[in-house]
Amino acid sequence: MDKKNGFVFAAVGQVHSSLKERTGAPRQAWDGAPGATVEIYPDFVDAVEGINPGAQVWILTCLHQADRSVLKVRPRGCMDNPLTGVFATRSPDRPNPIGLHRATVLALDEGRWLRVEGLEAIDGTPVLDVKPVLPQNGGS
Amino acid sequence: MDKKNGFVFAAVGQVHSSLKERTGAPRQAWDGAPGATVEIYPDFVDAVEGINPGAQVWILTCLHQADRSVLKVRPRGCMDNPLTGVFATRSPDRPNPIGLHRATVLALDEGRWLRVEGLEAIDGTPVLDVKPVLPQNGGS
Repeated sequence: MDKKNGFVFAAVGQVHSSLKERTGAPRQAWDGAPGATVEIYPDFVDAVEGINPGAQVWILTCLHQADRSVLKVRPRGCMDNPLTGVFATRSPDRPNPIGLHRATVLALDEGRWLRVEGLEAIDGTPVLDVKPVLPQNGGS
Repeated sequence: MDKKNGFVFAAVGQVHSSLKERTGAPRQAWDGAPGATVEIYPDFVDAVEGINPGAQVWILTCLHQADRSVLKVRPRGCMDNPLTGVFATRSPDRPNPIGLHRATVLALDEGRWLRVEGLEAIDGTPVLDVKPVLPQNGGS
Protein backbone atom coordinates (compact mmCIF):
# COMPACT_ATOMS: atom_id res chain seq x y z
CA MET A 1 0.00 0.00 0.00
CA ASP A 2 1.78 3.05 -1.27
CA LYS A 3 0.02 6.40 -1.52
CA LYS A 4 2.35 7.61 -4.26
CA ASN A 5 2.39 4.60 -6.57
CA GLY A 6 -1.13 3.37 -6.01
CA PHE A 7 -2.77 0.49 -4.25
CA VAL A 8 -2.81 -3.07 -5.54
CA PHE A 9 -6.01 -5.03 -4.99
CA ALA A 10 -6.33 -8.71 -5.81
CA ALA A 11 -9.66 -10.37 -6.46
CA VAL A 12 -11.13 -12.36 -3.57
CA GLY A 13 -13.61 -13.99 -5.92
CA GLN A 14 -15.54 -13.62 -9.14
CA VAL A 15 -19.07 -13.30 -10.48
CA HIS A 16 -20.77 -16.14 -12.32
CA SER A 17 -23.72 -14.83 -14.29
CA SER A 18 -25.72 -15.41 -17.45
CA LEU A 19 -24.77 -11.84 -18.48
CA LYS A 20 -21.83 -12.51 -20.79
CA GLU A 21 -21.21 -9.16 -22.49
CA ARG A 22 -20.77 -5.64 -21.19
CA THR A 23 -23.52 -4.39 -23.51
CA GLY A 24 -25.88 -6.90 -21.91
CA ALA A 25 -25.46 -5.41 -18.45
CA PRO A 26 -28.37 -3.25 -17.32
CA ARG A 27 -27.35 0.40 -17.16
CA GLN A 28 -29.17 0.98 -13.89
CA ALA A 29 -29.94 -1.46 -11.13
CA TRP A 30 -33.68 -1.04 -11.55
CA ASP A 31 -33.52 -2.28 -15.13
CA GLY A 32 -33.44 -5.71 -13.54
CA ALA A 33 -30.69 -8.30 -13.30
CA PRO A 34 -30.68 -12.09 -13.45
CA GLY A 35 -29.66 -14.31 -10.59
CA ALA A 36 -25.93 -14.61 -10.14
CA THR A 37 -23.44 -16.44 -7.97
CA VAL A 38 -20.45 -14.88 -6.29
CA GLU A 39 -17.64 -17.39 -5.96
CA ILE A 40 -15.31 -16.55 -3.09
CA TYR A 41 -11.90 -18.11 -3.64
CA PRO A 42 -10.79 -20.78 -1.12
CA ASP A 43 -8.12 -18.53 0.44
CA PHE A 44 -10.86 -16.18 1.65
CA VAL A 45 -13.49 -18.65 2.82
CA ASP A 46 -13.02 -17.62 6.47
CA ALA A 47 -14.05 -14.06 5.62
CA VAL A 48 -17.53 -15.21 4.52
CA GLU A 49 -18.57 -16.72 7.86
CA GLY A 50 -21.48 -14.79 9.28
CA ILE A 51 -23.18 -13.92 5.99
CA ASN A 52 -26.59 -15.57 6.15
CA PRO A 53 -29.38 -16.10 3.61
CA GLY A 54 -31.60 -13.04 3.47
CA ALA A 55 -28.72 -10.67 4.20
CA GLN A 56 -28.41 -7.50 2.16
CA VAL A 57 -24.84 -6.99 1.06
CA TRP A 58 -22.70 -4.60 -0.93
CA ILE A 59 -20.57 -6.36 -3.50
CA LEU A 60 -17.59 -4.37 -4.69
CA THR A 61 -16.22 -5.43 -8.04
CA CYS A 62 -13.50 -4.39 -10.43
CA LEU A 63 -15.04 -3.33 -13.75
CA HIS A 64 -11.99 -4.61 -15.57
CA GLN A 65 -13.25 -3.78 -19.08
CA ALA A 66 -13.61 -0.08 -18.22
CA ASP A 67 -11.87 2.80 -19.96
CA ARG A 68 -10.04 4.49 -17.09
CA SER A 69 -9.22 7.65 -19.03
CA VAL A 70 -12.86 8.79 -19.21
CA LEU A 71 -13.77 11.75 -16.95
CA LYS A 72 -17.07 12.84 -18.54
CA VAL A 73 -19.94 10.92 -20.11
CA ARG A 74 -23.49 11.43 -21.31
CA PRO A 75 -25.58 9.59 -18.67
CA ARG A 76 -27.17 6.35 -19.87
CA GLY A 77 -25.29 6.80 -23.17
CA CYS A 78 -28.02 9.18 -24.38
CA MET A 79 -26.81 11.99 -26.63
CA ASP A 80 -29.61 14.24 -25.33
CA ASN A 81 -28.04 14.21 -21.86
CA PRO A 82 -25.35 16.81 -21.15
CA LEU A 83 -21.74 15.77 -20.61
CA THR A 84 -21.44 15.02 -16.90
CA GLY A 85 -18.50 14.19 -14.66
CA VAL A 86 -18.26 10.45 -14.06
CA PHE A 87 -18.30 10.97 -10.27
CA ALA A 88 -21.89 12.21 -10.69
CA THR A 89 -22.87 9.11 -12.69
CA ARG A 90 -22.82 5.31 -12.54
CA SER A 91 -20.62 5.09 -15.65
CA PRO A 92 -18.36 2.02 -15.52
CA ASP A 93 -15.75 4.12 -17.34
CA ARG A 94 -13.98 6.09 -14.58
CA PRO A 95 -10.47 6.45 -13.14
CA ASN A 96 -10.86 3.68 -10.56
CA PRO A 97 -13.60 1.44 -11.99
CA ILE A 98 -14.93 -0.08 -8.78
CA GLY A 99 -18.45 -1.43 -9.14
CA LEU A 100 -20.84 -1.01 -6.19
CA HIS A 101 -23.71 -3.47 -6.27
CA ARG A 102 -26.40 -4.04 -3.68
CA ALA A 103 -27.70 -7.59 -3.64
CA THR A 104 -29.68 -9.99 -1.49
CA VAL A 105 -28.08 -13.26 -0.43
CA LEU A 106 -30.33 -16.19 -1.28
CA ALA A 107 -28.03 -18.98 -0.15
CA LEU A 108 -24.46 -19.77 0.80
CA ASP A 109 -23.32 -23.04 -0.74
CA GLU A 110 -20.28 -24.95 0.51
CA GLY A 111 -19.28 -21.95 2.56
CA ARG A 112 -18.04 -19.89 -0.35
CA TRP A 113 -20.62 -19.73 -3.15
CA LEU A 114 -23.00 -16.85 -2.53
CA ARG A 115 -26.16 -17.10 -4.59
CA VAL A 116 -27.50 -13.57 -4.88
CA GLU A 117 -30.38 -11.61 -6.37
CA GLY A 118 -30.02 -8.14 -7.89
CA LEU A 119 -26.39 -8.23 -9.03
CA GLU A 120 -25.96 -6.65 -12.46
CA ALA A 121 -22.36 -7.61 -13.25
CA ILE A 122 -21.09 -9.62 -16.18
CA ASP A 123 -19.77 -13.15 -15.94
CA GLY A 124 -16.16 -13.23 -14.80
CA THR A 125 -16.19 -9.83 -13.08
CA PRO A 126 -13.57 -9.86 -10.30
CA VAL A 127 -14.93 -9.33 -6.78
CA LEU A 128 -12.89 -7.12 -4.45
CA ASP A 129 -14.97 -7.00 -1.28
CA VAL A 130 -18.29 -7.88 0.32
CA LYS A 131 -19.82 -5.73 3.06
CA PRO A 132 -23.06 -5.80 5.03
CA VAL A 133 -25.74 -3.23 4.24
CA LEU A 134 -26.26 -1.35 7.49
CA PRO A 135 -28.91 1.22 8.50
CA GLN A 136 -26.61 4.14 7.83
CA ASN A 137 -25.10 2.85 4.60
CA GLY A 138 -28.26 2.20 2.67
CA GLY A 139 -30.18 -0.24 4.83
CA SER A 140 -33.65 0.29 6.15
CA MET B 1 -5.64 -4.15 -15.18
CA ASP B 2 -4.59 -7.75 -14.84
CA LYS B 3 -6.84 -10.36 -13.29
CA LYS B 4 -3.91 -12.54 -12.25
CA ASN B 5 -1.61 -9.94 -10.71
CA GLY B 6 -4.19 -7.60 -9.29
CA PHE B 7 -5.51 -4.17 -10.08
CA VAL B 8 -3.67 -0.95 -9.38
CA PHE B 9 -5.77 1.99 -8.21
CA ALA B 10 -4.36 5.46 -7.73
CA ALA B 11 -6.00 8.02 -5.46
CA VAL B 12 -8.13 10.66 -7.19
CA GLY B 13 -8.13 12.76 -4.04
CA GLN B 14 -7.86 12.69 -0.28
CA VAL B 15 -9.88 13.37 2.86
CA HIS B 16 -9.23 16.40 5.04
CA SER B 17 -10.74 15.89 8.48
CA SER B 18 -10.26 16.74 12.12
CA LEU B 19 -10.09 12.97 12.77
CA LYS B 20 -6.35 12.40 12.93
CA GLU B 21 -5.97 8.87 14.30
CA ARG B 22 -7.51 5.57 13.37
CA THR B 23 -8.67 5.01 16.95
CA GLY B 24 -10.53 8.31 16.75
CA ALA B 25 -12.69 7.13 13.84
CA PRO B 26 -16.24 6.14 14.84
CA ARG B 27 -16.72 2.40 14.49
CA GLN B 28 -20.14 2.80 12.95
CA ALA B 29 -21.50 5.64 10.87
CA TRP B 30 -24.25 6.36 13.38
CA ASP B 31 -21.71 7.12 16.08
CA GLY B 32 -21.43 10.48 14.34
CA ALA B 33 -18.67 12.07 12.31
CA PRO B 34 -17.36 15.61 12.06
CA GLY B 35 -17.51 17.67 8.92
CA ALA B 36 -14.85 16.83 6.39
CA THR B 37 -13.62 17.99 3.01
CA VAL B 38 -12.82 15.72 0.09
CA GLU B 39 -10.10 17.23 -2.05
CA ILE B 40 -10.24 15.99 -5.63
CA TYR B 41 -6.84 16.32 -7.30
CA PRO B 42 -6.60 18.74 -10.25
CA ASP B 43 -6.19 15.93 -12.83
CA PHE B 44 -9.69 14.71 -12.00
CA VAL B 45 -11.58 18.00 -11.70
CA ASP B 46 -13.63 17.27 -14.85
CA ALA B 47 -15.05 14.15 -13.19
CA VAL B 48 -16.68 16.24 -10.43
CA GLU B 49 -18.90 18.34 -12.69
CA GLY B 50 -22.55 17.59 -12.00
CA ILE B 51 -22.22 16.97 -8.26
CA ASN B 52 -24.36 19.62 -6.61
CA PRO B 53 -24.85 20.76 -3.00
CA GLY B 54 -27.42 18.57 -1.31
CA ALA B 55 -26.41 15.50 -3.29
CA GLN B 56 -26.02 12.20 -1.48
CA VAL B 57 -22.85 10.46 -2.57
CA TRP B 58 -20.86 7.32 -1.93
CA ILE B 59 -17.23 8.03 -1.25
CA LEU B 60 -14.92 5.07 -1.76
CA THR B 61 -11.64 5.29 0.07
CA CYS B 62 -8.55 3.20 0.58
CA LEU B 63 -8.16 2.34 4.27
CA HIS B 64 -4.40 2.41 3.89
CA GLN B 65 -3.62 1.65 7.52
CA ALA B 66 -5.55 -1.62 7.43
CA ASP B 67 -4.17 -5.08 8.15
CA ARG B 68 -4.97 -6.96 4.94
CA SER B 69 -4.23 -10.39 6.37
CA VAL B 70 -7.24 -10.33 8.71
CA LEU B 71 -10.16 -12.59 7.71
CA LYS B 72 -12.09 -12.74 11.00
CA VAL B 73 -12.77 -10.17 13.71
CA ARG B 74 -14.92 -9.65 16.76
CA PRO B 75 -17.44 -6.98 15.63
CA ARG B 76 -16.91 -3.55 17.18
CA GLY B 77 -13.76 -4.91 18.83
CA CYS B 78 -15.90 -6.40 21.61
CA MET B 79 -14.60 -9.65 23.06
CA ASP B 80 -18.17 -10.73 23.82
CA ASN B 81 -18.93 -10.85 20.11
CA PRO B 82 -18.15 -14.09 18.26
CA LEU B 83 -15.39 -14.23 15.66
CA THR B 84 -17.04 -13.22 12.39
CA GLY B 85 -15.84 -13.15 8.80
CA VAL B 86 -14.79 -9.64 7.78
CA PHE B 87 -17.16 -9.73 4.76
CA ALA B 88 -20.03 -9.79 7.29
CA THR B 89 -18.64 -6.76 9.16
CA ARG B 90 -17.48 -3.20 8.62
CA SER B 91 -13.96 -4.00 9.86
CA PRO B 92 -11.35 -1.82 8.14
CA ASP B 93 -9.01 -4.82 8.36
CA ARG B 94 -9.88 -6.94 5.31
CA PRO B 95 -8.16 -8.26 2.17
CA ASN B 96 -9.05 -5.25 0.01
CA PRO B 97 -9.59 -2.42 2.49
CA ILE B 98 -11.94 -0.24 0.48
CA GLY B 99 -13.96 2.12 2.66
CA LEU B 100 -17.58 2.79 1.66
CA HIS B 101 -18.94 6.02 3.09
CA ARG B 102 -22.27 7.68 2.48
CA ALA B 103 -22.14 11.45 2.81
CA THR B 104 -24.10 14.57 1.95
CA VAL B 105 -22.46 17.24 -0.17
CA LEU B 106 -22.74 20.62 1.53
CA ALA B 107 -20.76 22.66 -1.00
CA LEU B 108 -18.36 22.36 -3.90
CA ASP B 109 -15.55 24.93 -3.63
CA GLU B 110 -13.37 25.88 -6.57
CA GLY B 111 -14.75 22.94 -8.52
CA ARG B 112 -12.79 20.30 -6.65
CA TRP B 113 -13.19 20.67 -2.86
CA LEU B 114 -16.27 18.78 -1.71
CA ARG B 115 -17.40 19.83 1.74
CA VAL B 116 -19.38 16.89 3.11
CA GLU B 117 -21.34 15.81 6.15
CA GLY B 118 -21.30 12.27 7.53
CA LEU B 119 -17.88 11.08 6.40
CA GLU B 120 -16.08 9.09 9.09
CA ALA B 121 -12.61 8.77 7.59
CA ILE B 122 -9.33 9.94 9.04
CA ASP B 123 -7.35 12.87 7.72
CA GLY B 124 -5.23 11.93 4.73
CA THR B 125 -7.32 8.91 3.69
CA PRO B 126 -6.91 8.38 -0.07
CA VAL B 127 -10.13 8.70 -2.09
CA LEU B 128 -10.61 6.20 -4.92
CA ASP B 129 -14.04 7.08 -6.30
CA VAL B 130 -17.19 9.14 -5.80
CA LYS B 131 -20.60 7.88 -6.94
CA PRO B 132 -24.16 9.18 -6.71
CA VAL B 133 -26.56 7.54 -4.26
CA LEU B 134 -29.42 6.28 -6.42
CA PRO B 135 -32.81 4.79 -5.45
CA GLN B 136 -31.62 1.24 -5.91
CA ASN B 137 -28.21 1.64 -4.29
CA GLY B 138 -29.28 3.04 -0.98
CA GLY B 139 -31.18 6.18 -1.87
CA SER B 140 -34.75 6.93 -0.92
